[in-house]
Amino acid sequence: MHPLLPSGGGLVAYSDVRPFGSVYADAAQPTIKKKKVVVLGTGWAGTSFLKNLKDPSFDVQVVSPCNYFAFTPLLPSVTCGTVEARSVVEPIRNIVKKKNFNVQFKEAECFKIDTTKQKVHCRSIQNINIGGKEEFTVDYDYLVIAMGARANTFNTPGVVENAHFLKEVEDAQRIRRSIIDCFERASLPSVSDEERKKILHFVVVGGGPTGVEFAAELHDFLHEDLIYLYPDLEQHISITLLEAGDHILNMFDKRITAFAEEKFQRDGIKVQTGSMVVKVSDKSITLKERSSGETKVLPYGMVVWSTGIGTRPVIMDFMKQIGQGNRRVMATDEWLRVEGVPNVYALGDCATINQRKVMLLQSDRGDAAKQATRLDIEKFKSALSEVDHKMKSLPPTAQVAAQQGEYLAQCFNRMKECDENPEGPIRFRDSGRHRFKPFRYKHLGQFAPLGGEQTAAQLPGDWVSIGHSTQWLWYSVYASKLVSWRTRFLVIGDWGRRFIFGRDSSRI
Amino acid sequence: MHPLLPSGGGLVAYSDVRPFGSVYADAAQPTIKKKKVVVLGTGWAGTSFLKNLKDPSFDVQVVSPCNYFAFTPLLPSVTCGTVEARSVVEPIRNIVKKKNFNVQFKEAECFKIDTTKQKVHCRSIQNINIGGKEEFTVDYDYLVIAMGARANTFNTPGVVENAHFLKEVEDAQRIRRSIIDCFERASLPSVSDEERKKILHFVVVGGGPTGVEFAAELHDFLHEDLIYLYPDLEQHISITLLEAGDHILNMFDKRITAFAEEKFQRDGIKVQTGSMVVKVSDKSITLKERSSGETKVLPYGMVVWSTGIGTRPVIMDFMKQIGQGNRRVMATDEWLRVEGVPNVYALGDCATINQRKVMLLQSDRGDAAKQATRLDIEKFKSALSEVDHKMKSLPPTAQVAAQQGEYLAQCFNRMKECDENPEGPIRFRDSGRHRFKPFRYKHLGQFAPLGGEQTAAQLPGDWVSIGHSTQWLWYSVYASKLVSWRTRFLVIGDWGRRFIFGRDSSRI
Repeated sequence: MHPLLPSGGGLVAYSDVRPFGSVYADAAQPTIKKKKVVVLGTGWAGTSFLKNLKDPSFDVQVVSPCNYFAFTPLLPSVTCGTVEARSVVEPIRNIVKKKNFNVQFKEAECFKIDTTKQKVHCRSIQNINIGGKEEFTVDYDYLVIAMGARANTFNTPGVVENAHFLKEVEDAQRIRRSIIDCFERASLPSVSDEERKKILHFVVVGGGPTGVEFAAELHDFLHEDLIYLYPDLEQHISITLLEAGDHILNMFDKRITAFAEEKFQRDGIKVQTGSMVVKVSDKSITLKERSSGETKVLPYGMVVWSTGIGTRPVIMDFMKQIGQGNRRVMATDEWLRVEGVPNVYALGDCATINQRKVMLLQSDRGDAAKQATRLDIEKFKSALSEVDHKMKSLPPTAQVAAQQGEYLAQCFNRMKECDENPEGPIRFRDSGRHRFKPFRYKHLGQFAPLGGEQTAAQLPGDWVSIGHSTQWLWYSVYASKLVSWRTRFLVIGDWGRRFIFGRDSSRI
Repeated sequence: MHPLLPSGGGLVAYSDVRPFGSVYADAAQPTIKKKKVVVLGTGWAGTSFLKNLKDPSFDVQVVSPCNYFAFTPLLPSVTCGTVEARSVVEPIRNIVKKKNFNVQFKEAECFKIDTTKQKVHCRSIQNINIGGKEEFTVDYDYLVIAMGARANTFNTPGVVENAHFLKEVEDAQRIRRSIIDCFERASLPSVSDEERKKILHFVVVGGGPTGVEFAAELHDFLHEDLIYLYPDLEQHISITLLEAGDHILNMFDKRITAFAEEKFQRDGIKVQTGSMVVKVSDKSITLKERSSGETKVLPYGMVVWSTGIGTRPVIMDFMKQIGQGNRRVMATDEWLRVEGVPNVYALGDCATINQRKVMLLQSDRGDAAKQATRLDIEKFKSALSEVDHKMKSLPPTAQVAAQQGEYLAQCFNRMKECDENPEGPIRFRDSGRHRFKPFRYKHLGQFAPLGGEQTAAQLPGDWVSIGHSTQWLWYSVYASKLVSWRTRFLVIGDWGRRFIFGRDSSRI
């Protein structure tokens, strides 16, 4: 295994893991048979790849258990009916239909990737009447893995059984129904006031952007809509946001964290930091305070779990197969190629670009230094050390996944062109240059909606913006980012409807 | 049991089943404690009653397993995504909120009516965390039963397990998902063409207005939207409409039946009449031809069962309890009072107004004749016989239920007033007059949408209207009948969206 040096500041130093040249060279030959590209997943990365792929010389197969793309940043809005589930999804076949070349979609999940035979094994998600589920295989020349991640429970007992996640559209719909269920249940005459308080205690675990946005949306839903429909229950409602760290939104600027914590306090959302959840039963959560080690039991009516992401089992298996079994997340190089396997790419939440610490690679320094003769060795070391500090894994966001999908599609679109005129950096180990420039993430900022028509945003250049105007920025950015005019029309319609009629409270 | 004579032509002849006068008289007293009205159900009848009840001297409790009212005539549109599920529902609490007197809603199902203790036993529809479901009782002074009906399977084996009904909003949502599932399944590479034909064979059982409208909507959905998204599957699609009688839409004018059958033939919807379904398995339907007795097996991908309505088990139990155990449907008198029980009313699909044949009531003729001294006895007999011919049970439609709800609410609103000045017809058996005029159904016509922007309508006075203009009449009548401005806005928005973007095909 060899080092990967991402560009930090003006430093230019590259390596490649394996000489893929021979494999890629094929694409440059005049092709009689179209190259088969298989895309696994229809989330941000997969859909972005598909939308941006223009070269008609590929034969594309898309395999995903979802026959639609979901605009996930609006999922917290779907949980409370601010936006409808259908408004944030775009059928993949609508996207496929617009392509001027052959794209096939199959609603199935990939359960095994066979890199030696270059095929993926898939299984229908439906129970066919007799004999279980349909299975089939799909051959590939290039495989694009964009299967996303699963919710991370840290193996906390009871989470899968009792908590809601907030990753899929169906999750959001279930949460919505569950909120109304709690209110209807609390309205029954046979329920005591004490029990009512428990039923109407909503708990959010995880103080990241999703958890915070959900808590804020929920607060608005309860206080702008539901208390008018269930006036007797207002006194019993409470929301708690649990965060294991010291602050919520800790990936944001401190000003945003402070503003959010203050706003939540004003709104009556209880923020409890420094507590780990150790167990979730069907009606209570057991907490352990980090500092004192004390445990505490918190009864609840509904709990939403949003503490980050974990690797999917099928990816775990694949990682073992390709010698990455000891890693937590699948690694790619800076060209999004899965390390150790030719012609396989991984994008989005299911992989990270290998961020190996440069300073540990003493044995390889000689190699690298050869290419960096302009720097003396001590300067080089200090530069590398600085890079290490600046480097962080890219966040598991829609923005990263979408940019990676677009980047890879551009590479595929320009494959022939770049085979003839490589535009990438000089190779460390082979002669010549890389075909493509490596992937570079452009951070365009991140929003943290805080409810009550207030949003915080951390924009590039450490520009922080908080308040009503940012909410309008949020509206316009999200409207413009929606994948189609149809969804744009629907989401804007939903927002308008919410302003006029409020959110709907029927258990649908 | 005594006769009930509905007014036919100019004939006026009434009877009442029991002298309820003493019970009703209570309401005329100055009340210290408000009279408790319990409404079971939030369908057309219950909601119409609730909306029209204005007298603040009642204490109203509504119990229903649905916390919303559904505009059921648009359910066939929901199955194909022409209209969204949420657009056709109105939360009951939105309606309750607007009342100027105390109305309590409880999301629960009534499982027992106790007429001796004047209370209903209810059970939450949610599984409460521990110890099963919450149960409670509600006391009543007046009980309004508006629980609707269940789908009638005629005890055909396999229907409940394998067929979809089309009575609830959830049914429509399931059908929608199921249609897309069939298409996704048929797209898999491991499925043979023969199997594809089976999967894409959609069967509708029942040629009444709902079945016909669903078949028409489905045809439009398949041919206006899905074939563009699944172009390879067009050749495999088929729709069959099964009807046990000789013609579809047999409650309509013959011209409409003929038009519909012709249109369906042109559209390629196979209409198979004269065949009874004797069994539904997980992948095929067994038919028996009425004339020849031959059986035939029909493989299918999805089947929707829409052959009319049956009595709910809780109503069955209640009927046994009140001595109506030998009836198929619960009977009320013309004032919508359940026969044999004081202070209990039944409206909508869960009851019929007793339509006892007048000519059989020889023993009572003397009584009746006393009131009808203008007619000699032979003329009277022939008039009664004519009435018998004209009389049919009221159809189980939204229109009837809504009018009954409104009628009963008006009676409740004017209870005091009419106790003092009875406005009803002269009593047969007691002295004086009935308090209220009996319920009279005003038929405003019925629509039968046939797809392709064509609708047939049978309007009062045997006026038949068919075609595109009728579709626009349908749009405007349905838009105007929607319960709230919110649903009106949403449904019209959905129609507009469908015109612009087509129907959505994501499995949500």
